Amino acid sequence: MTAVALDAFVHDLATKSGEAILPFFRTALVVEDKTHGRAFDPVTEADRAAEQVMRRMILSAFPDHGIIGEEFGADRSGATYVWALDPIDGTKSFISGMPAWGTLIGLLKDGAPVYGMMHQPFIGERFFGDGGSAHYLGPAGKRRLNVRDCGRLEDAILFTTSPLLMQGEDRTAFHRVEEQVRLSRYGGDCYAYCMVAAGLVDVVIESGLKDHDIVALIPVIEGAGGIVTNWEGGSAAQGGRVVAAGSRAVHAEVLKRLQG
Amino acid sequence: MTAVALDAFVHDLATKSGEAILPFFRTALVVEDKTHGRAFDPVTEADRAAEQVMRRMILSAFPDHGIIGEEFGADRSGATYVWALDPIDGTKSFISGMPAWGTLIGLLKDGAPVYGMMHQPFIGERFFGDGGSAHYLGPAGKRRLNVRDCGRLEDAILFTTSPLLMQGEDRTAFHRVEEQVRLSRYGGDCYAYCMVAAGLVDVVIESGLKDHDIVALIPVIEGAGGIVTNWEGGSAAQGGRVVAAGSRAVHAEVLKRLQG
Repeated sequence: MTAVALDAFVHDLATKSGEAILPFFRTALVVEDKTHGRAFDPVTEADRAAEQVMRRMILSAFPDHGIIGEEFGADRSGATYVWALDPIDGTKSFISGMPAWGTLIGLLKDGAPVYGMMHQPFIGERFFGDGGSAHYLGPAGKRRLNVRDCGRLEDAILFTTSPLLMQGEDRTAFHRVEEQVRLSRYGGDCYAYCMVAAGLVDVVIESGLKDHDIVALIPVIEGAGGIVTNWEGGSAAQGGRVVAAGSRAVHAEVLKRLQG
Repeated sequence: MTAVALDAFVHDLATKSGEAILPFFRTALVVEDKTHGRAFDPVTEADRAAEQVMRRMILSAFPDHGIIGEEFGADRSGATYVWALDPIDGTKSFISGMPAWGTLIGLLKDGAPVYGMMHQPFIGERFFGDGGSAHYLGPAGKRRLNVRDCGRLEDAILFTTSPLLMQGEDRTAFHRVEEQVRLSRYGGDCYAYCMVAAGLVDVVIESGLKDHDIVALIPVIEGAGGIVTNWEGGSAAQGGRVVAAGSRAVHAEVLKRLQG
């Protein structure tokens, strides 16, 4: 598979999954509760329809590739190439009608993320990269994505989806960083990572991520010149506790503060 | 001024202010700090350019109308008709590249909000109403806006821009409501109110609002069948502490819990 063919195929996955999702956005949804009332984790028809479309397309084009999906689990996850799919990252934004959600399409080779895209079909914008470079396509046209270096943590804009998602010591550690930054905002989901890649946000800190929540975003952030690791500085490709930043120095400072 | 002429004029204000704002979205901005470091309250070139465009248009069409603007203050605020303008509600979202911001255009007659619009020029969507009805125009077409009745607080989706914006007892009161709801989300700005009007969010609670933050949203929410008051149940048109809801029963329950 050439880079051009891969790029075209992922754009096609984005287009088709977007067509499956959009009829459900801002309409009355029957929201199911996967965890039977213990937490609010909605699964929508849109989620399932979009993942099914993408799984069919991947199976047809690359029958030997594996797939990890948010809705339908893992198939052939030991394959050389494995796709990581999250049809609607930001389901809580989605059910609230807010636009900060997106479709995540990532590709792993031997466990390492090699290509990723975030697609927002309602707005019509795509953030994509291969670790070497990253690009944006949307209402404002096509352009390169480049992180910014905010210099120091005191000048950083920080995002997390919600500190309420963090448990005990993790939340305390997060607040140690939060009290240092220029601006802390909640509610970003996948958008916050894309804004790191776009040079508009400096740091994202989260915990409890699944692999399909982050795999697609790693090649975008790294392609834009940023860094994304777990809280210990290792690979973020397994999910868990993640830190993304536009500046290596600020990233190192964040890790230090998280460790207490 | 007929209702049709008013509607056309406000749509024109939205179009022209959007043209003034968009060149600045997701570009490098020189962010000023109005409060000299005490809080992060960015003012952008976009804010100013959009308010100037709208002020010129209003002054030219209705020289006897008053104007209250976020950037340039109040002119003729004792007039029968007074416009309340917030060119970029959600400046923190704006500078972070996130799409949850909008332009607020409201009209007061003898101090009561009679028409309002929220315009998001990047996404290309408009939420507008006159207290009797409310409508949406956007990528998904044109339609009526109608609130939903979630029945009880335990089934509500709650939004606030950030509990960090609330002081002392207000924050405690907010948390008394928050602990009851099905889902609490942060970061909505004007979008959260529009999602109440659209029947996707049930309650918005905020404090510290200016009049130009809320005047435009009142005729949209009321036109969609919802209710918006201050925390004491009186008019929200002066800003301050505000509660918006799709259900009158849930709104009453929220007021009761806020009062402790």
